[in-house]
Amino acid sequence: MSAADDIQVGSTSRPRVLVIGGGFGGLAVARGLARAPVEVLLVDRSNHHLFQPLLYQVATAGLSPADIARPLREVLRRQKNATVLMAEVTAVDAEARLATLDGGQQVPFDYCVLAVGARHSYFGNDGWERHAPGLKTLGDALDVRSRTLRSFERAERAAASLRAGELEPGGAEDPADRTYRPHDAEPPTFVVVGAGPTGVEMAGALIEIAQRTMRRNFRRIAPQRTRVVLVEALDSVLSNYPEELRESARRQLEGLGVEVLLSTRVTAIDEDGVTVERVGAGADASGEAGSKDSERLVTRNVVWAAGNEVPPLVRETVHRVGGEVDRAGRARVESDLSLPGAPHLFVIGDAARLEDEEGELVPGVAPAAMQAGQSVADSIRADLAGRQRKPFRYWNRGTMATIGRARAVAWIGRLRFGGLLAWLAWSLIHIFFLIGYRNRVVVMLEWFVLYLTGQRAGRLLYDRSGVVGGSKA
Amino acid sequence: MSAADDIQVGSTSRPRVLVIGGGFGGLAVARGLARAPVEVLLVDRSNHHLFQPLLYQVATAGLSPADIARPLREVLRRQKNATVLMAEVTAVDAEARLATLDGGQQVPFDYCVLAVGARHSYFGNDGWERHAPGLKTLGDALDVRSRTLRSFERAERAAASLRAGELEPGGAEDPADRTYRPHDAEPPTFVVVGAGPTGVEMAGALIEIAQRTMRRNFRRIAPQRTRVVLVEALDSVLSNYPEELRESARRQLEGLGVEVLLSTRVTAIDEDGVTVERVGAGADASGEAGSKDSERLVTRNVVWAAGNEVPPLVRETVHRVGGEVDRAGRARVESDLSLPGAPHLFVIGDAARLEDEEGELVPGVAPAAMQAGQSVADSIRADLAGRQRKPFRYWNRGTMATIGRARAVAWIGRLRFGGLLAWLAWSLIHIFFLIGYRNRVVVMLEWFVLYLTGQRAGRLLYDRSGVVGGSKA
Repeated sequence: MSAADDIQVGSTSRPRVLVIGGGFGGLAVARGLARAPVEVLLVDRSNHHLFQPLLYQVATAGLSPADIARPLREVLRRQKNATVLMAEVTAVDAEARLATLDGGQQVPFDYCVLAVGARHSYFGNDGWERHAPGLKTLGDALDVRSRTLRSFERAERAAASLRAGELEPGGAEDPADRTYRPHDAEPPTFVVVGAGPTGVEMAGALIEIAQRTMRRNFRRIAPQRTRVVLVEALDSVLSNYPEELRESARRQLEGLGVEVLLSTRVTAIDEDGVTVERVGAGADASGEAGSKDSERLVTRNVVWAAGNEVPPLVRETVHRVGGEVDRAGRARVESDLSLPGAPHLFVIGDAARLEDEEGELVPGVAPAAMQAGQSVADSIRADLAGRQRKPFRYWNRGTMATIGRARAVAWIGRLRFGGLLAWLAWSLIHIFFLIGYRNRVVVMLEWFVLYLTGQRAGRLLYDRSGVVGGSKA
Repeated sequence: MSAADDIQVGSTSRPRVLVIGGGFGGLAVARGLARAPVEVLLVDRSNHHLFQPLLYQVATAGLSPADIARPLREVLRRQKNATVLMAEVTAVDAEARLATLDGGQQVPFDYCVLAVGARHSYFGNDGWERHAPGLKTLGDALDVRSRTLRSFERAERAAASLRAGELEPGGAEDPADRTYRPHDAEPPTFVVVGAGPTGVEMAGALIEIAQRTMRRNFRRIAPQRTRVVLVEALDSVLSNYPEELRESARRQLEGLGVEVLLSTRVTAIDEDGVTVERVGAGADASGEAGSKDSERLVTRNVVWAAGNEVPPLVRETVHRVGGEVDRAGRARVESDLSLPGAPHLFVIGDAARLEDEEGELVPGVAPAAMQAGQSVADSIRADLAGRQRKPFRYWNRGTMATIGRARAVAWIGRLRFGGLLAWLAWSLIHIFFLIGYRNRVVVMLEWFVLYLTGQRAGRLLYDRSGVVGGSKA
């Protein structure tokens, strides 16, 4: 093969479809246009597609980043009409049909699909983010993993330091002298904010780390005394699920040892802990503002799984064409997922707000994003063939959440079940939807090892700069 | 199991062996004392044991950190007389038998083993480190991986920007406007400094990434035109190997497309490239100082594999007991690996300098460190039993280096061979010595996929802070 074979001429006379975001939705658009007479340009800030439903397993050291992510270039390698560009889109001008990249360059397009997903929202308390990271990217997951592992190490070291004859305090003249209080030697407390699927899964995995993975690993602290607190403002976990499954999930969590605080709202987060308050406590007591039932959870380990908001690019783009966004920044779209008055501009996935025929909101889950991406690809192909576009219809294939080892809840049409069977169904479906044989085999192997031994291969602390956890001196 | 079961009393009347460093040497000491009547305290800055011989495969995206590292606590979980502490030792006082930790605390010991390894040395040019990272820790490897992957993305983006009609430059009023020069659109050049085993392995893997992994992944650049330059000051690659293997390794590298510059010294490294110079060029021409045969390699991708030095802790500790270190900072040790005049203080692995009976230096390789660790454990057990210590004897079981897919050289006693057979031997031995069944199975699988498809699961760009490669907008 000569060098020139690899280079394809980029500027063709075919219409260009600009897809912003290589998540489930964006990738479905690109793939759906594989045989269409278009040029697909997929732009993403990262170089990989991420299987986000398993991201919490990276955060809890069960899986490696490579197990749940694949390079976008690799995914689209054989699709000759697709080009991948690693860049950030900062603005989309629907009228001029130009998108602006972070470097200032402009990308002409004929169609544009905004598939940018959502990030976590702190409901205006942006200062909380530093102490309570959320889970959207591999970087987020590795950050949570590192905090989690470090907190056990810190407690063990404090316990050793406080034991007489074990480690002796340094001389008073040493400015680096570190003093520990008895509290530092307690096993860590984890607080997970938000009891949707991610929060429930995180809480279940954290308690399993404490009780199984860390067992017999420490000599000074007892990791099984770790507290995991799941805080939820609504009055149930998994509030989108049917009643009996919500109850089942709560019971399964509590059976594992997770403390579930329902109808409880977070009012403050700082580096030493979280302040929570019973929802409606003030209102019920009608006037007794003093008995607010406020509680302080002392912890350095908070995970945020409570809310989503859409990147500002969507709002800005929608406003330019005179459209509307909801409170979370999601674009209100037409039944074909295009923006009102801009049929060549689509918004899909977590960034879009759409009701199905029964008036139910299409949920922000991977299957919905994939179906939407497919629908957009169909609409573009219909345009080019001079056919009518078909409206998007969401087909709910069911939904499930794991709670821990051999524990889960599943809801597939009229079928509702929990426990081992739901967990097996969850495992099989997630393996099936992973991209790539290699990932399926490795994840199956990791889960097998985890199930049998509780060991987590990702239990590693390292730092990109080599400062912590390295051998440098 | 009650909570108290997990906590063991740390302060016993048994002698305490402080092992500094959880590499091959330190871990061999700890394991060798499993049944001895001592308390082992293993202190490491990181929480894992690293299988360093495969670290270059993490740097080149073939393996994940979890495949070649295991938590030290997990490794020593069942060894009840061993405690692991994640901390840094800043000083060792042999006379007072106290080690000082980063927090200022002091750790009393009866025996102390310095197994701290080596870090890369820039021969006084510490400013080079920023542009030419070395490979010692997982953090280093991920840093090199990230630089490597980004350089291909940068070239593709520049090529797209320079193509008419593809991306259009931003308006002149945009301060963020990024301008590319034609050079930016060339496939990257990689420079590897030092042609020991690590340098040879890195160069071979980098050319394989360019020619196989990235194939058909780009639309604007031709990754197979990537240059990989291996720079070595001596007149051969793998200079410790027998003549015929050095020649074979060089031929195999050049057969893959690596440019091998022998007798060539690096004189400068900055953010735009590396300046090299023929060794002895000035001397040969006797007087003609002008014809120094200096060359500039324009690159942002330099990997340093040229020299080692021992952390200052070793030199400081050795000087306190009146001992000596060599130029690389290695401690000169007695035949039982203890320091002269301090029989309770041992130095092993890369941090020690010892000649075998034939006057040959014991090499800084994993098998030598493991044998030394075992010997120290034997000596401590001999002391406790009132027996005589035995001198350490290094048994060279052979040595091998890979060059690329199905290419390697091997040297086992009188056997010297290269090519596919050496590569198979190398693969089997490295799988065998990996710790943990899980790692063996996953690494075999990764190698199988890599061999057949050239795909590398670790081809992922992400940032711990979530700023780059994340979905934040």
